[in-house]
Amino acid sequence: MDFLAFLAADPEAMRLPLEVLLVFGTAKFLAEVFERLRQPGIVGEILAGVVLGSSVLNWIRPDELLRSLAEMGVMFLLFRVGLEVKPSELLRLGGTAAVVAAAGVFLPFVMGWAIVSAWGFGQIEAIFVGATMVATSVGITAQVLAAKGLLSERSSKIILAAAVIDDVLGLLVLAVVSSTARGKINVVELSITAVVAIAFVIVMAAWGSKAATHVVPRVHASMRAGEAEFSLAVVFLFALSVLAVYTGVAAIVGAFLAGMALAETVGERVKDLAHGATELLVPFFLAGIGLNVDLSVFASPSLIVLALVILAAAVLSKLLGCGLGALPLGRADAFRVGVGMVPRGEVGMVAAQLGLVMGAISKDIYTAVVFMAVATTLAAPPLLTLAYRSVKKNQEQEVFRLG
Amino acid sequence: MDFLAFLAADPEAMRLPLEVLLVFGTAKFLAEVFERLRQPGIVGEILAGVVLGSSVLNWIRPDELLRSLAEMGVMFLLFRVGLEVKPSELLRLGGTAAVVAAAGVFLPFVMGWAIVSAWGFGQIEAIFVGATMVATSVGITAQVLAAKGLLSERSSKIILAAAVIDDVLGLLVLAVVSSTARGKINVVELSITAVVAIAFVIVMAAWGSKAATHVVPRVHASMRAGEAEFSLAVVFLFALSVLAVYTGVAAIVGAFLAGMALAETVGERVKDLAHGATELLVPFFLAGIGLNVDLSVFASPSLIVLALVILAAAVLSKLLGCGLGALPLGRADAFRVGVGMVPRGEVGMVAAQLGLVMGAISKDIYTAVVFMAVATTLAAPPLLTLAYRSVKKNQEQEVFRLG
Repeated sequence: MDFLAFLAADPEAMRLPLEVLLVFGTAKFLAEVFERLRQPGIVGEILAGVVLGSSVLNWIRPDELLRSLAEMGVMFLLFRVGLEVKPSELLRLGGTAAVVAAAGVFLPFVMGWAIVSAWGFGQIEAIFVGATMVATSVGITAQVLAAKGLLSERSSKIILAAAVIDDVLGLLVLAVVSSTARGKINVVELSITAVVAIAFVIVMAAWGSKAATHVVPRVHASMRAGEAEFSLAVVFLFALSVLAVYTGVAAIVGAFLAGMALAETVGERVKDLAHGATELLVPFFLAGIGLNVDLSVFASPSLIVLALVILAAAVLSKLLGCGLGALPLGRADAFRVGVGMVPRGEVGMVAAQLGLVMGAISKDIYTAVVFMAVATTLAAPPLLTLAYRSVKKNQEQEVFRLG
Repeated sequence: MDFLAFLAADPEAMRLPLEVLLVFGTAKFLAEVFERLRQPGIVGEILAGVVLGSSVLNWIRPDELLRSLAEMGVMFLLFRVGLEVKPSELLRLGGTAAVVAAAGVFLPFVMGWAIVSAWGFGQIEAIFVGATMVATSVGITAQVLAAKGLLSERSSKIILAAAVIDDVLGLLVLAVVSSTARGKINVVELSITAVVAIAFVIVMAAWGSKAATHVVPRVHASMRAGEAEFSLAVVFLFALSVLAVYTGVAAIVGAFLAGMALAETVGERVKDLAHGATELLVPFFLAGIGLNVDLSVFASPSLIVLALVILAAAVLSKLLGCGLGALPLGRADAFRVGVGMVPRGEVGMVAAQLGLVMGAISKDIYTAVVFMAVATTLAAPPLLTLAYRSVKKNQEQEVFRLG
């Protein structure tokens, strides 16, 4: 932000409003541009980060403020998505979702490992790349489906349920891989991790809603402070996020389960207020993905080729793995599910970072993996628009009728 | 947070959800406790910061995350308050408000200077304390009035208008004082600062609303992205905050003027969404005030006496100065205005910090001034409840009727 510092009588007082203005304003401006070009606005918001970041203008560097807003943004996003999903419906689709998740973990891992092995890298490096390709980042898909009003589609619910299971599986793969890289696998510890994570998700999905239906209205009725129901919902959201991290899964899985548990309990007022917080914060999550892109690292042609091969494998392996898992639902839904599971994000980057710090993977491989995570994220919204085209038309008519 | 680190498989992933949960949850819990004791909930939210901070539990230290959320919280708070205020009404009350602000700047400055001089400190130190006692922190008052539905009262509008003028005057006093302490006063620079700040406020208050009424609906009508009106409002809020800091006044003055300019333009949907962001963020502003309290510094009895004298002078000088300025409105409204202008906050603390860094004031005086800022903030909500008691009853009946 140094280039803008001359503007400010008081640079410290200027920093927050200026950063928020630049990131939020650019994201919403490019979203509008993309909508007019009949492209998903979400891609514009991600590109806002690329434009503002080190690759183009170099006006904004990802700092603590932007990281915090981004993290809260994706948590509110998954919370809001959870609020639209009834747990009973999700549990009914649990069998299919588990197959989708398992196939969508197995195939990317094997393809990532095979490619990097074949390229001549070592086994540890190949295993790590496989692990980074496992975990779907459901935030992008959820945002696209929510914005288009498609969360009630059967395929959307499969995607959400599979993404939760996928996160648990991804956690286990990562735990196994990093123990392998360290040279010893503690089977007892891994088993405990697996059991705790699975138990948390099942308990919350199965009984969280029932508990919330009993407890929340009573607590709310006895409260006197203003907007008490919203305050309760926010506390519940962050409490389950803390619990989720404690049991080993991602905070956003907790946020999603919190939303789902409250879906049939809270009123429209809470949904509107949560929507306001989400609308404010999500652009920071989206632009934050773009901010982490550093195009300058692609100086070597062989690295570009490797990155593109890894990217292609990342897209195809989820499309095939998850799509085959969802084939019993018909080809259209199978394609939707496959596409919806394509984006990788935080989890893949965390795995890559861990590998880099441990010395298990080289800087080149790291760069290729980060590129894969961002590119799958950018590819998902247009692919989803394509996959849901036939549904979208009905939906738009309905919105029109309601409006 | 070290004491809680053992909880986390991944301490870095745990940090944000846990901090948000602790601060937001404790603030809302204590707000509820205070409401049940028939005290203002806002005091409970401030005390949550004291309880979590270094004085009591020492669980939370003010970090970049909490500071950012607090800063955004007070900006959204003033924006939301601005949305309820029509600029025409505020300008009509401008004359009275200017008298209130001027008297409420003069008297605290003189009393602060006189007390510290009489106590035996040097002239520079006395002048600095006077300067820290000048600027009203309108956030607390605005929150109390908004929560009680009292923003449409004449006295509430006087308070808001006077607080904006007060901020400009406080800026000038601070500029003069810090130049004095540096040993040279640049009259030209000070005059430019004054003219730019005053021009910005007058232009925005007088023509901001007209411009927004012309521009916003057209831009909004031509936009295709979802919730475009809310995005426009947020961009406007942060753009005016940046402009405000650039012209020398506080970011929250820009946020307030942005809200006021949009008051007659935006729909209920934008107000609801902005309310959601405000409800989420304001507890961090309130608890943040409490987090900065360090009770352990009050080890010396003479410092306690000095702090209490400064506190009494801070309360009395605003009550008398602003109250006398508002006396033409009748005694009840004069008392309300006086009480509403009592809280000091950020600006006083910034002045104190500046004096400390410049070596103009001692650590003892600094401590006493910070105590004054927090204590006036804590005193304001119960005093406001008292001052507006007769109005509050009518209001509650009205709410009841509407409900």
